[in-house]
Amino acid sequence: MKKSNINRAVWAEKCKVYLIDQTKLPFKEELYISDNYKKTCEAIVTMVTRGAGSIGATAGFAMMQAAFEAPKDNYKEYLTKAKKEIENTRPTAQDLFAAVNRVYNKALNSPEDAEKEAHLIADETSEAGKLIGEIGSELIKDGYNILTHCNAGPLAIVEYGSALAPIIHAHQNGKNVFVYVDETRPRNQGAKLTAWELNKAGVPHVIIADNVAGLLMQDRKVDIVITGADRIAKNGDTANKIGTLEKAVLAKEFNIPFYIAAPLSTFDNKILTGKDIPIEERDENEVLYISGEDKKGEIHRIRIASPGSKAYNPAFDVTPVKYITGFITPDGIKKANQI
Amino acid sequence: MKKSNINRAVWAEKCKVYLIDQTKLPFKEELYISDNYKKTCEAIVTMVTRGAGSIGATAGFAMMQAAFEAPKDNYKEYLTKAKKEIENTRPTAQDLFAAVNRVYNKALNSPEDAEKEAHLIADETSEAGKLIGEIGSELIKDGYNILTHCNAGPLAIVEYGSALAPIIHAHQNGKNVFVYVDETRPRNQGAKLTAWELNKAGVPHVIIADNVAGLLMQDRKVDIVITGADRIAKNGDTANKIGTLEKAVLAKEFNIPFYIAAPLSTFDNKILTGKDIPIEERDENEVLYISGEDKKGEIHRIRIASPGSKAYNPAFDVTPVKYITGFITPDGIKKANQI
Repeated sequence: MKKSNINRAVWAEKCKVYLIDQTKLPFKEELYISDNYKKTCEAIVTMVTRGAGSIGATAGFAMMQAAFEAPKDNYKEYLTKAKKEIENTRPTAQDLFAAVNRVYNKALNSPEDAEKEAHLIADETSEAGKLIGEIGSELIKDGYNILTHCNAGPLAIVEYGSALAPIIHAHQNGKNVFVYVDETRPRNQGAKLTAWELNKAGVPHVIIADNVAGLLMQDRKVDIVITGADRIAKNGDTANKIGTLEKAVLAKEFNIPFYIAAPLSTFDNKILTGKDIPIEERDENEVLYISGEDKKGEIHRIRIASPGSKAYNPAFDVTPVKYITGFITPDGIKKANQI
Repeated sequence: MKKSNINRAVWAEKCKVYLIDQTKLPFKEELYISDNYKKTCEAIVTMVTRGAGSIGATAGFAMMQAAFEAPKDNYKEYLTKAKKEIENTRPTAQDLFAAVNRVYNKALNSPEDAEKEAHLIADETSEAGKLIGEIGSELIKDGYNILTHCNAGPLAIVEYGSALAPIIHAHQNGKNVFVYVDETRPRNQGAKLTAWELNKAGVPHVIIADNVAGLLMQDRKVDIVITGADRIAKNGDTANKIGTLEKAVLAKEFNIPFYIAAPLSTFDNKILTGKDIPIEERDENEVLYISGEDKKGEIHRIRIASPGSKAYNPAFDVTPVKYITGFITPDGIKKANQI
């Protein structure tokens, strides 16, 4: 078994699952430690861990935990119930379903087989990010300004990330790159997590309100857009964080290449087009309230909208493939007709 | 002189200027009272008052105050210096320049003439909003879902508003309308002010993150987009709150009518195209920090972005006229070639 690795966002030791608590970032760096599958599910629901790859790895470890917890006389029923529960934590995440299925099928043999498979998934996800970084960095020329939306960095994909992997790789290999980070309302994953990761990696960047990308593209201040994905249909239509569709439409209008970076587990050939991808609607309070740190270092949750008004909070949108220039995958850079 | 009218966002009594303090809304309803032009300038800079029409009316009253304050032996120099100072408060606001010029020219005669002119501007702005409401509501059919960005309601345009005037008029005349309110980062004028105004007017609405409009348009859940404007060039290119360009590009892509509602003072024939409109860049802390109310009713200002990262905060963008279906003005609904 791989030893615990604090460079990873998700790992496990025996039946304990360790997660960098992304709800505490960027203000505090804390670990969330779970010794049972229900607590691990809770971490996915509350977004202690988030991002397609990290959710997948975490879900795999949750399935592993369920296998060790399952009573001998009710083994398969317990596993099946746990599988459903894990799958219900985040209905849009393709990596989650893939990981749970793989670990479930091994768990039918034994908890030890489930354990091996869960670690294999985490390692494969990490390795996929590494490859995405090497391959995708070919698209990034010296001096490029890059726009990214949401968080598809190391935190989101176990270790290297998807959208950020090529950017960090290019930076580490001596290219001058500059990143415009969409803050990514309502949960500010860009401002809170992507900016934190780019800081750690030393990559020059600036945070922008989500409203700014149009102006930047109009002024030719963006050379390429790279985002991650939550689920990619067979035809290339891509579900990702709400707002991705807007950036893709704008990129097309202003003739700027728009790439999706994703491990192979995010490609779901069973879904023919984006019309069949369910969109998760989340609690309106994610829009109406926000948490942050005051100057004394205390965390407050405050209302930032008119009292008495409600909000509508779809968490994802689907970008039709016609707006996507290509896909950066561990198997190479592909056009829609090659996936 | 018109008596004080608490339904207005801006008014004056003799040399006192009264403003609904928009920085305190939606949590507290307070007045900002200024008895000198410098304090009134401060209110414009700090956005105690904001929105093209309200800024214009406030700037007119500030110029009036300067006329009463000016020493007899240095009258014109004092006025000219004050004029420049008032003009420098918000460099993108066309209504401000128009109002200051009108009141300045009358002030050259006497402070009393300046006073009459300043009140006339506030009254005309109010009346313009009323006409925009009546005229623009013809575009809104029963059952329409409307998207608006930023705040162009009564608070922004002295009394009736521009973008919200047709919506509120349609609602008051028995049409079923529903409004999607862009929260409008970074200052959340949509979530804080537009939602507050729609609440007051009883118009059904919901707040959305700015990232959501693309999804709504793709799903045909928006029938028309109406926003206000800060400055409209001779060819129809329109400067408005950052993010307006994005919504206009999306509306065009998804074949949804996109209208700008504005009083005549916002049309600046001296500016030929949008390329000549200067874009105001504001403090990065508007993006990195936000204020709101905790559950005890206390206001906190908190950091909502990774410590150590910077932000870029352009306050406006320019929407090229090709994305604009038409202009709702007090003189009627016009195409770009009719303005």
